[in-house]
Amino acid sequence: MREYPVEIKDLFEPEGVAIIGASRIPGKVGYKLLENVVTSGYQGGIYPVNRKGGELLGLKVHTSIRSIGSRVDLALISIPAEHVLEAVRECGEIGVKFLIIITSGFAEVGNIEGERKILEEARKFGMRVLGPNIFGIYSSKVDINATFGPATIKKGNISIITQSGALGIAMIGKTATENLGLSSMISVGNKSDINESDLLDYLSDDDDTKVILIYVEGVKEGVRLMSSLKAASRKKHVIVLKSGRSKKGAMAAASHTGSLAGEDLVFDDIMKQCGVLRAVSIEEAFNWCRFLSESTMPGGENVVIITNGGGIGVLATDACETYNVNLYDNYNMLDSTFKDVIPSFGSAKNPIDLTGQATDTDYIRSLRKALETDEIHGVIALYCETAMFDIEKTVELMSTVYGEFKNRKPIIFSAFGGEMIKDAIGRLTTMNVSVFDDVYNSVSCLGALYRKYRYMNRKEHPKIKPNIDMVRIREIVRSALDDGRRFLLAPEAQELLKASGIKGARSITVKNIQSALTAARDIGYPVVLKVVSKDIIHKSDAGGVALDLINDDEVMDGYQAVMRNCKTYMKNAEIEGVEVCKMIPKDTETIIGGRKDKTFGPIVMFGLGGIYVEVMKDITFRAYPIDRLEVMDMVKGIRTYPILLGVRGEEMKDIEKIMDTIIKVGMLIDQIDEISDIEINPLMVYPQGEGAIAVDARILLNDDRRGDQK
Amino acid sequence: MREYPVEIKDLFEPEGVAIIGASRIPGKVGYKLLENVVTSGYQGGIYPVNRKGGELLGLKVHTSIRSIGSRVDLALISIPAEHVLEAVRECGEIGVKFLIIITSGFAEVGNIEGERKILEEARKFGMRVLGPNIFGIYSSKVDINATFGPATIKKGNISIITQSGALGIAMIGKTATENLGLSSMISVGNKSDINESDLLDYLSDDDDTKVILIYVEGVKEGVRLMSSLKAASRKKHVIVLKSGRSKKGAMAAASHTGSLAGEDLVFDDIMKQCGVLRAVSIEEAFNWCRFLSESTMPGGENVVIITNGGGIGVLATDACETYNVNLYDNYNMLDSTFKDVIPSFGSAKNPIDLTGQATDTDYIRSLRKALETDEIHGVIALYCETAMFDIEKTVELMSTVYGEFKNRKPIIFSAFGGEMIKDAIGRLTTMNVSVFDDVYNSVSCLGALYRKYRYMNRKEHPKIKPNIDMVRIREIVRSALDDGRRFLLAPEAQELLKASGIKGARSITVKNIQSALTAARDIGYPVVLKVVSKDIIHKSDAGGVALDLINDDEVMDGYQAVMRNCKTYMKNAEIEGVEVCKMIPKDTETIIGGRKDKTFGPIVMFGLGGIYVEVMKDITFRAYPIDRLEVMDMVKGIRTYPILLGVRGEEMKDIEKIMDTIIKVGMLIDQIDEISDIEINPLMVYPQGEGAIAVDARILLNDDRRGDQK
Repeated sequence: MREYPVEIKDLFEPEGVAIIGASRIPGKVGYKLLENVVTSGYQGGIYPVNRKGGELLGLKVHTSIRSIGSRVDLALISIPAEHVLEAVRECGEIGVKFLIIITSGFAEVGNIEGERKILEEARKFGMRVLGPNIFGIYSSKVDINATFGPATIKKGNISIITQSGALGIAMIGKTATENLGLSSMISVGNKSDINESDLLDYLSDDDDTKVILIYVEGVKEGVRLMSSLKAASRKKHVIVLKSGRSKKGAMAAASHTGSLAGEDLVFDDIMKQCGVLRAVSIEEAFNWCRFLSESTMPGGENVVIITNGGGIGVLATDACETYNVNLYDNYNMLDSTFKDVIPSFGSAKNPIDLTGQATDTDYIRSLRKALETDEIHGVIALYCETAMFDIEKTVELMSTVYGEFKNRKPIIFSAFGGEMIKDAIGRLTTMNVSVFDDVYNSVSCLGALYRKYRYMNRKEHPKIKPNIDMVRIREIVRSALDDGRRFLLAPEAQELLKASGIKGARSITVKNIQSALTAARDIGYPVVLKVVSKDIIHKSDAGGVALDLINDDEVMDGYQAVMRNCKTYMKNAEIEGVEVCKMIPKDTETIIGGRKDKTFGPIVMFGLGGIYVEVMKDITFRAYPIDRLEVMDMVKGIRTYPILLGVRGEEMKDIEKIMDTIIKVGMLIDQIDEISDIEINPLMVYPQGEGAIAVDARILLNDDRRGDQK
Repeated sequence: MREYPVEIKDLFEPEGVAIIGASRIPGKVGYKLLENVVTSGYQGGIYPVNRKGGELLGLKVHTSIRSIGSRVDLALISIPAEHVLEAVRECGEIGVKFLIIITSGFAEVGNIEGERKILEEARKFGMRVLGPNIFGIYSSKVDINATFGPATIKKGNISIITQSGALGIAMIGKTATENLGLSSMISVGNKSDINESDLLDYLSDDDDTKVILIYVEGVKEGVRLMSSLKAASRKKHVIVLKSGRSKKGAMAAASHTGSLAGEDLVFDDIMKQCGVLRAVSIEEAFNWCRFLSESTMPGGENVVIITNGGGIGVLATDACETYNVNLYDNYNMLDSTFKDVIPSFGSAKNPIDLTGQATDTDYIRSLRKALETDEIHGVIALYCETAMFDIEKTVELMSTVYGEFKNRKPIIFSAFGGEMIKDAIGRLTTMNVSVFDDVYNSVSCLGALYRKYRYMNRKEHPKIKPNIDMVRIREIVRSALDDGRRFLLAPEAQELLKASGIKGARSITVKNIQSALTAARDIGYPVVLKVVSKDIIHKSDAGGVALDLINDDEVMDGYQAVMRNCKTYMKNAEIEGVEVCKMIPKDTETIIGGRKDKTFGPIVMFGLGGIYVEVMKDITFRAYPIDRLEVMDMVKGIRTYPILLGVRGEEMKDIEKIMDTIIKVGMLIDQIDEISDIEINPLMVYPQGEGAIAVDARILLNDDRRGDQK
């Protein structure tokens, strides 16, 4: 047996491939697999295995795995599910490194035990497993098409990892039709062993790969995936297409924090955190692949639109806003650059509009001007069909100019018109020039590149570990657990926040009206009363809160009302007492939350507070640990961020304090196994330098003391 | 001279066409125009005019317009701008009805006077003018291609009106390539006379037209356009593509209401009000054209997805949420319908997933099931390339099934894969089956159809004219104008609202502290003080407001503070006094506004109040007059609408009262010429049945008394 784990490299560059279940019936998977391996040009040993023996596609068919007798790194298994386990054992015995289990009928149909056994068997021999329930792998490294999909795959620098087999096979066909070249295509199916992370780790260092596209439906090992994605996206363009954006895919989370957002919102934000570009549709993902696989990184944010049609120019301008592409607006500079190429009734404002009168020569001259000008960092070249252009010549010139400048700055084309334009797009595409007929598709590509550009230009900050009194916090948590509770009472929560250095409202818990009055006078009016009861979590709903009490009379009335309401709300509620708190001055209400996410581990959440957050879902998430820049992204990421900067003459809010609080909440979730959820709601935020106060906090605990992530 | 105005019908069905400026030089517009008219199959008289005479394309060339001597309904003018006026006169003299002025060099380059003169001359003779600065017109009615664009135009039921010439010509080419058939294509250019409204009025009643696509950059005669669009969209599908969605196109409105939203937001909402489908991109507009030109209206909202791939099924489900397509979720019914066609590991949940194992026969059987089932009203059929299908046969079957059911319920296809799929899409497209490779594109089409379906199913309500004391309102307005002001002071505004039946806060305006105290005691504590000054419009910014004063001391302090602040804010501000108002209990703050829009006339605005409205731009607009259903659409149209329904256990708000107030504001803007802007901010809205109070209102007046729409 192997002493060291096999390297994933051997999956992509195997020496010797066995096709177990090779068939002589065209149309059968076992035939197609062998045929593809043979015709793809793979130079290593190819060993079909079928108990019937004989010869197939010019190769000797082995009657058993054991009889191969040569080095086999990779075994493709395509036999009925009930025979797979035996084949796995035999593969182990002859020293196979990787098993590609094509066969379906395992976890995806509920046969989890069957899948577990296979994996167990493989592990005995130190083998790694891809699949089961997959269509195979293509690797340009050794020119092997070990899939039962289309035979023709164009070689290139795009690598595709797909969880869906059907879609993956269709994608192979589509890449060929669309002239997209692949460095690899891997079907991961049930991901019993090898998942996206293993593959990403290899592809990050693969010189033949520039763009990685991942189609994913569900995430396994989310924490590891994040780490692999972060590493990969610093070296490659990583595009993710995840289905299940809609409500159906949303997580049914227990905590209130979770109920604010479906899982997809969390996924979306974490992809941003990892520098991954998330596409909405297959079309968008493929368009990005095409462009990013060819384009260089820009040197700055100044983009210019060159057009011969005003209408498409304006549409492209709209698209630039949609996709956050920055149009250069130094009009003096633009004017002096383009004045001698623009007709008098054209415009040197951006878009640079050459008008329909422009000839192909004018157009190419303007394009060159833009590309040669250092202050311009990216170019969108639009072309609207006109009789003024010799289209043949234009295509030649476009591809020449493109070739000359493509390594210096990003260029994207868009051309709109009839049959001639269709042909031109086809020809330019063959020459690897990125051109789309709709301007929105073109600008979307540039937008993706700029998102990546901005991510790459971030400076990495050290992760922050704030100073928190962990000993005290553990005491509070254990005491609540000892009390048989899975949540902290309000005074405990306030105590925990205090130990974390998060400022709360001063409060005293009392058990009768007289003590309430004493406490209120001590704290100072106005005060708030809140019921303390393990049976009542949503205090407001129960009428268990009395706000803005300004004197003794109101405290007395309030105390009685709270008691009465809570008894009405839940007849047998056990009421520990009433918390008398300082009434916190109103300012900007925010919510900060954290939870142990079952997919991504500790995550934090931020949003503006009040009823808007529930309705608008204007919240952002990040995985912990988190650096200051990531927290800043998170805070800036809400649509209502301008409110924190101060609107209507209000002062800027204490964003630093928000950031500190987010980091502390993240640390608590991460470090204290027993805490599953935290929600500070509201965190009242005052003007810059004046801090923030956690008015209320809900803290939920785990079932046992060893991080049972619900 | 003609006694009655010409009918627009004659533009589409002319008897006799003159081509003034016909040229013998191929490549020249004057040649192309003639060539297109001749080759398009037009059976009427064709009269080329060129002072050089001779013969051209087999036709006699007239040396002058006057020498034609036959009936000419339509004259295409393509001669230098300086000669156009003379040609117009001559056309008038021979009884031409329509002038199509191809020539550019008029208003679009600042030559407004030249354009005015031409129009004036045309009107003398009762002629109508299309253009100038256009590429012409195509009309399938008489098979005339009177454009200088591509010669080949496929006949069909889509009509395109375009403001951009360059884009329009390219669109002609694109329609041919995409197999989209046209009933007409009209270039409107400068719209000196004929604009979209004239054309819509004709096309609404044109039996050959099913879909009207309008590309627009700017709107002239907005009020008339709305009326034409409303009428047209009840008979046809009307799609609008308007560029200038982004900030650049936003209106720089003087009023605060206007500053909340760019013009595009207003345009967008008014298109909804008119039942128009607004597309974002050309691709989307063309996709919708294709689908809507063929599809029937659904009989209900139950849509089913049939797929042979789980992945694309989930993507389509996501897309259904994006485009608001309702997936049928009666799982019992779905199960009983599809149980005998779905494999055991497939799913009869919606999407109906036949899995990659399904054959073409299974697929078509399921499709038929869905189409034959009455409870299912629309079908999305997805196909992911697989070896299990005979693609040739599938295409045949798909088109057969489509043909059989297309008049009974809407069906949209999506097919994803390689070369074979590309061919299949091409073939199906030729057979007028709507199929796209990306599921988002397909679902977007169905979404457009359902938007229209919902619009058509609205019941028309009578327009409401609330009872308002117009006499009193005019007195208030005139008195302010007599005072030399262009706005109402707060007490005047409250008085105006009262006369309109809009409840305000009780208030008394005073001029010294002693009167303030008397007023405060009279009104009852708590009260608010607000400065009254014609020099201070933004009272809060000036520190001219003191809130929540609960006793005499606070009123005294507040009065002094307001005076001091205002003097600091603006040294020479003339202060008329201080308004003492009842402090209004907090509840849900909304904003209701109205203004005379320079494009669309009287419009009303609604949004939730507070700082969110500015940041989130969560506001809706409608043009006045407005029926109750339209007001309801408007209120429901804000994303924060659920807040009005009551969140977190709050009661539903008094939506009726909001609607009443919107209608009243609309009526004021519409009926009182002197009022240019109204903003009630906030309108505090209480629970259902408890009404609403206009806490503050800003009312701006016009410069003179005859509706000078700024």
